[in-house]
Amino acid sequence: MSGNTFGLLFSVTNFGESHGPAIGCVVDGCPPGLELSEADIQPDLDRRKPGTSRHVTQRQEADQVEILSGVYEGRTTGTPICLLIRNTDQRSKDYSAIAQTFRPGHADYTYLQKYGVRDPRGGGRSSARLTAPMVAAGAIAKKWLAAQYGTRVRGCMQQVGEIAIDFESWEHVPNNPFFAPMADVSDLESYMDSLRKAGDSCGARIRISASGVPPGWGEPLFDRLDADIAHAMMGINAVKGVEIGAGFESVVQRGTVHGDSLSPHGFRTNNAGGVLGGISTGQDLEVSIAIKPTSSIISPRETIDIRGESTEVITKGRHDPCVGLRATPIAEAMLALVLIDHALRHRAQNADVQPPLRPIPAAVR
Amino acid sequence: MSGNTFGLLFSVTNFGESHGPAIGCVVDGCPPGLELSEADIQPDLDRRKPGTSRHVTQRQEADQVEILSGVYEGRTTGTPICLLIRNTDQRSKDYSAIAQTFRPGHADYTYLQKYGVRDPRGGGRSSARLTAPMVAAGAIAKKWLAAQYGTRVRGCMQQVGEIAIDFESWEHVPNNPFFAPMADVSDLESYMDSLRKAGDSCGARIRISASGVPPGWGEPLFDRLDADIAHAMMGINAVKGVEIGAGFESVVQRGTVHGDSLSPHGFRTNNAGGVLGGISTGQDLEVSIAIKPTSSIISPRETIDIRGESTEVITKGRHDPCVGLRATPIAEAMLALVLIDHALRHRAQNADVQPPLRPIPAAVR
Amino acid sequence: MSGNTFGLLFSVTNFGESHGPAIGCVVDGCPPGLELSEADIQPDLDRRKPGTSRHVTQRQEADQVEILSGVYEGRTTGTPICLLIRNTDQRSKDYSAIAQTFRPGHADYTYLQKYGVRDPRGGGRSSARLTAPMVAAGAIAKKWLAAQYGTRVRGCMQQVGEIAIDFESWEHVPNNPFFAPMADVSDLESYMDSLRKAGDSCGARIRISASGVPPGWGEPLFDRLDADIAHAMMGINAVKGVEIGAGFESVVQRGTVHGDSLSPHGFRTNNAGGVLGGISTGQDLEVSIAIKPTSSIISPRETIDIRGESTEVITKGRHDPCVGLRATPIAEAMLALVLIDHALRHRAQNADVQPPLRPIPAAVR
Amino acid sequence: MSGNTFGLLFSVTNFGESHGPAIGCVVDGCPPGLELSEADIQPDLDRRKPGTSRHVTQRQEADQVEILSGVYEGRTTGTPICLLIRNTDQRSKDYSAIAQTFRPGHADYTYLQKYGVRDPRGGGRSSARLTAPMVAAGAIAKKWLAAQYGTRVRGCMQQVGEIAIDFESWEHVPNNPFFAPMADVSDLESYMDSLRKAGDSCGARIRISASGVPPGWGEPLFDRLDADIAHAMMGINAVKGVEIGAGFESVVQRGTVHGDSLSPHGFRTNNAGGVLGGISTGQDLEVSIAIKPTSSIISPRETIDIRGESTEVITKGRHDPCVGLRATPIAEAMLALVLIDHALRHRAQNADVQPPLRPIPAAVR
Repeated sequence: MSGNTFGLLFSVTNFGESHGPAIGCVVDGCPPGLELSEADIQPDLDRRKPGTSRHVTQRQEADQVEILSGVYEGRTTGTPICLLIRNTDQRSKDYSAIAQTFRPGHADYTYLQKYGVRDPRGGGRSSARLTAPMVAAGAIAKKWLAAQYGTRVRGCMQQVGEIAIDFESWEHVPNNPFFAPMADVSDLESYMDSLRKAGDSCGARIRISASGVPPGWGEPLFDRLDADIAHAMMGINAVKGVEIGAGFESVVQRGTVHGDSLSPHGFRTNNAGGVLGGISTGQDLEVSIAIKPTSSIISPRETIDIRGESTEVITKGRHDPCVGLRATPIAEAMLALVLIDHALRHRAQNADVQPPLRPIPAAVR
Repeated sequence: MSGNTFGLLFSVTNFGESHGPAIGCVVDGCPPGLELSEADIQPDLDRRKPGTSRHVTQRQEADQVEILSGVYEGRTTGTPICLLIRNTDQRSKDYSAIAQTFRPGHADYTYLQKYGVRDPRGGGRSSARLTAPMVAAGAIAKKWLAAQYGTRVRGCMQQVGEIAIDFESWEHVPNNPFFAPMADVSDLESYMDSLRKAGDSCGARIRISASGVPPGWGEPLFDRLDADIAHAMMGINAVKGVEIGAGFESVVQRGTVHGDSLSPHGFRTNNAGGVLGGISTGQDLEVSIAIKPTSSIISPRETIDIRGESTEVITKGRHDPCVGLRATPIAEAMLALVLIDHALRHRAQNADVQPPLRPIPAAVR
Repeated sequence: MSGNTFGLLFSVTNFGESHGPAIGCVVDGCPPGLELSEADIQPDLDRRKPGTSRHVTQRQEADQVEILSGVYEGRTTGTPICLLIRNTDQRSKDYSAIAQTFRPGHADYTYLQKYGVRDPRGGGRSSARLTAPMVAAGAIAKKWLAAQYGTRVRGCMQQVGEIAIDFESWEHVPNNPFFAPMADVSDLESYMDSLRKAGDSCGARIRISASGVPPGWGEPLFDRLDADIAHAMMGINAVKGVEIGAGFESVVQRGTVHGDSLSPHGFRTNNAGGVLGGISTGQDLEVSIAIKPTSSIISPRETIDIRGESTEVITKGRHDPCVGLRATPIAEAMLALVLIDHALRHRAQNADVQPPLRPIPAAVR
Repeated sequence: MSGNTFGLLFSVTNFGESHGPAIGCVVDGCPPGLELSEADIQPDLDRRKPGTSRHVTQRQEADQVEILSGVYEGRTTGTPICLLIRNTDQRSKDYSAIAQTFRPGHADYTYLQKYGVRDPRGGGRSSARLTAPMVAAGAIAKKWLAAQYGTRVRGCMQQVGEIAIDFESWEHVPNNPFFAPMADVSDLESYMDSLRKAGDSCGARIRISASGVPPGWGEPLFDRLDADIAHAMMGINAVKGVEIGAGFESVVQRGTVHGDSLSPHGFRTNNAGGVLGGISTGQDLEVSIAIKPTSSIISPRETIDIRGESTEVITKGRHDPCVGLRATPIAEAMLALVLIDHALRHRAQNADVQPPLRPIPAAVR
């Protein structure tokens, strides 16, 4: 368990490199009897895949998923589900330049120092490409959660670089390449165009939300729902910050404001973001993450080479100028994976608990 | 493993309730041969314990730790170390009021909904008192890390409610009840006094830093060093946000700014906060957390009782008006626990790796 | 997780040394709402404790258990249950003799070679005394299993040294100091007396059985019910062999004999011992274990000292001449711990499975 | 983690069904820098594969392994190694007969009762075919252990049905289809021939041995080396018993005989089988396992169908008359996987321990 398995009861073991023959994962612990085919998984992969707009990397990958095991006659059998995605657009170009220098802000340096050896082709194991199998696994989790509890996981863009995005409606999210919940994204389009011309990159801020989460999920002290969400989110490539509910805003809130008052009609507010004491309240889970700018840029940067000598690096090739643009389906998937794991853990220990109080309505949605 | 064990190789299993006979933990995986006595642990417990200034809860607990196992003739034996802290100031007052209503922003509600039963005395298991055993375990981790790698973990207050705190020097931190890195804390004193008079509470923002972390710690994809830090921090009571390095600021940074350039003399900046690709760079780890205001306040709040009926709640008793004030040693401990676990994991898999590059100096300290 | 935690969902973390201040464990994952007090646990501890007959060690330990957490108003709360047993009969005698030489067949040698340091008092961590907390934890597991499924775990002696024991009835088991299922144990009494006079020790063979185990428990491929039982049993001090069902007898059985045929009235035989493919069949679980003779004997043995020099060792003090005599409640407890863990795991993944076939009666009991 | 991952630090996640498109595993935690190609793995797979003699199943599978990840330029990178084996001889025959009845002694029944659904093609997930990926993973473990410690893992047949096999020499093992350590296997040949004619099957007993295991591996109390070996062995299909060292023979041994005396020249005997207190002694590990007769036989057996009605079953098709015949490389692989995991765990906690005593020679080999 060298860190490549995610989840205790619904566990996903990830494998592969960006330019190896294939990437994929093994999903262990999926309950039996769930109707499942590639068609349930492909749509989320398509939302994440590269090359879908001029604002993202132009690498062409179909990201076609193949189910190798765990499904029989259209239903899960309760045994491991291996999901395989062949890499098809590995360029045979020379990686020796990247292999000899370190990109500022990239994992080049740390992988080499840790392992003494690394696969430099397209970032190897550190590539964001390895989020694809998680999106695939997350699609299974989403389907099961929706069927069992009516849980729905959604994400949208909140900010791209300096451009804050007003939340208008979830309906707009699928209609633009930014997952922006707004109708008119022309400002974003021109912002991204100018960034690309400048040979630079920018960060982003993303919101992920889950409705239909019953009260009682989360295992304090340490496997708290919020702690596990933070773990999942900070584990996504390029994420540097995670907030639950009011997040850093809660620093300046008073207790009389922050604590969400309760009424028979539900909670009045949702500063908690759906978690109290590490356990779900029944309100929507509200999570926000900060994504740093892409480190692979064509602007020249000061760096060193693998002998420790001073040099300069320019990263050519096909890179996202804002890695956050494709992060929404990834963050959704990771949240779904946390939720299904806790749903199963809750069933294990608390299956026969009768909550003394009927769930109060979650007034804030 | 219902969530009360922290860490894979240096694992801490926490037990106890706020007003039960005792709290404590079992530390498993501590390497043998470390000199250890209660005197190594007590100082950090004393930094966290209640009743040390007028700005924190007046509950009187000596928080005296007893080592029950795992140490022989002053050295760890490699076997489990049980640390016991007797509760001494459990008041025999009636908890029925708290037992019947839910405090807005408190885990009262979720614990009852999850388990169907709870220990309401002083918050029971959800009390921040349960961080004491982690501080004790963290003291062991700190000692071992310092001895083996010269690693040093420190924390300080960055903001209390609306009052931002300038970083003057680490030297000031032990000299005031706020862990503030500044000489003159009179503004904080009066702020806290007025808050207490208002019967309200406030949030806080804390910085935790670790120097002397070698490059190469962290297990991507999922047990990344930053992901595990986020998990640890978000698992501390009342934490609602976690940042590594530039954190949410990285949203508005350009790639040309964010990526820390390298020179033979070291990194030029530390936006990464000491982690790239989930693996330590050798620079200082820099973490920041947001702590929400205490939910137990004497101002009346709208709520419901356990039958779901509308009511009002006032929380009397001995509570911290800013739970963040005592959080610094807790956050330090949790960071130390993450680090020792990764130090051991690194030894397991990478003990015989020769890093091709000598560690570059960490210019930014 | 340096090996001192047992179980995934109902996990028991064990701590303590034979002659330290206390031994105990933390039980994490016990479902909430179970009525529990020390009185539920003490009887099994009393069955295991030393000094109850002339055939076992004369060390006097009350083995009085104290519940430190996880129970409120007589019911489990779903939070960790710490069970503490104070050591009361630590002799202040000089352990330097044992500390300087290695007893043949004892863990003295391996502990020192592994950790470089050890607590030699009474065997320290390697003492069979550390099974007491497992017996205590097992009592909780037994109670829950009985309440939820009617599961009953029982054990008895099958053989002491050369003396094979016929199974007459479970009723006799509590009526003699050997846990023998026979009315007349005079042969065993005299066998043990002569062994003690000879200053020697002997092995034993024990049967453990569980009825009322529903079909479907066990998680193949690797966390198979039988594999986890083997792990639990081989983890008991001095155990050198484990069998399920027909065990080693199955080597000489033909397929036409071994495979338990099924009828609408139940299975015809139980060579499987209640497990097929790592999953419980609904028949009784049948397990048998081999326990080696005690290594601490007063007959002189050839050995080396800690400098590697040739010497001789005689182990005086209070030791069981047949460590197997007290192993029955230990083995029961370990089986119960395996079963509750799998019961919870089954609930997690398969809670909503409708078995297509109603359970067939388990004809063989 | 629904039971399909083996090992804590060198962990193998297994997937696939007997007649699905592919089987395989993901190896996580392999140290970086190990030279590795398919050629290192294929020989052990070839030793296990079906169709190599008239005494085993005639299914034709090349069992050709493909490394999909974790190796770059001929060396492991420390990232997950996915090993894929395509199934090539899935017969398109109708499985409805097997799908409707239960074979006595087979996992048919328990899988269906557990999951409510199963893949019946060739036993689906319960097929011994799923040991192939473990053999592949074990080959990696063997190579690393040999390179690092000179550890060598070997197995051989001890008994086939009633035919006990004298140990003549390890040299004979590769020269016959039984892994028998004897020169003349004509008795075994005719025994197997008559068994096949009788339409019946038989059990077997196998010895597995490891030399070059340093003292100090194993994590008591629960992750003892012997306990983990028992877990691994009992997890192999059809295994019903496990012994370490003297095993069940130790029941009738006296302490004066069983305890292996030590001299400056080494241990005098090896009744311990290389483990004391759950920790390796430095002597050879000696393990013995009992394998039950194959349940899929052409002799008619009484059983029930999936409606619970009485019926009879005859299993036609391609089955091993003695599943034990191909078990030797499997058991070797499982032992190697246990050993590498403990080697890594030992490095984590005890890397800097100086054993006070130089290892004594292991006189008994």
